[in-house]
Amino acid sequence: MRFDHAGVATRDAADLAELFADLLDAPVAHEETFDGMRVVFLELGGGYIELLEPTEGGPIADYLTRDGPGIHHVAFATDDLSAALDRARECGVDLVDEEPRPGAWGHDVAFCHPRSTGGVLVEFVEH
Amino acid sequence: MRFDHAGVATRDAADLAELFADLLDAPVAHEETFDGMRVVFLELGGGYIELLEPTEGGPIADYLTRDGPGIHHVAFATDDLSAALDRARECGVDLVDEEPRPGAWGHDVAFCHPRSTGGVLVEFVEH
Repeated sequence: MRFDHAGVATRDAADLAELFADLLDAPVAHEETFDGMRVVFLELGGGYIELLEPTEGGPIADYLTRDGPGIHHVAFATDDLSAALDRARECGVDLVDEEPRPGAWGHDVAFCHPRSTGGVLVEFVEH
Repeated sequence: MRFDHAGVATRDAADLAELFADLLDAPVAHEETFDGMRVVFLELGGGYIELLEPTEGGPIADYLTRDGPGIHHVAFATDDLSAALDRARECGVDLVDEEPRPGAWGHDVAFCHPRSTGGVLVEFVEH
């Protein structure tokens, strides 16, 4: 398992991408509109920062209303997402996604529920 | 700039370390008591997870009371922390630490204020 990205909820992905590109020397590697969100990946050594700006209602819009902008989740890359989910079940972790589903950038993803991972929203991603 | 770690506020670092070691294949790389906190670093490909359990009052204890356990900050490694702070000032970022200060694991660290970084508490660390 490798670090993949930190996911950040924001109301202005373009503005924050410009800041992080300068501050962290992390240029834009990919951007798209996906699942009701403007999604921007910034690349830095060892992984990415994913900026998530809602373009309609949904979980990120709800998160911004409830908690304000900030770090939303942390994602770990695996070569075998189904095996990662089996391992999570063996660990007694509650899954948001029982099976891999299509995520941003054409990757397969699945989330664990933060109630069983110390309040941390953990994403698994298979590139 | 490289990803270094995600910092997680927790009320039980030993318990969460055991879970993440199994779930993420991220064994303990370092642990110590530092600055009123039990600090545990878990190593995975591309970086670390830092677990922070307060042993006395302080910012992490306050965070747990206010927001509950979860992702507290994200840290980026640099070979020149003073230059990173100069760059942050040029970007108009408010600094919590105007100068490098000693952090956990013998590293020098400095934090940016989340009010100027999209709600993200950004740490710079020089190993």
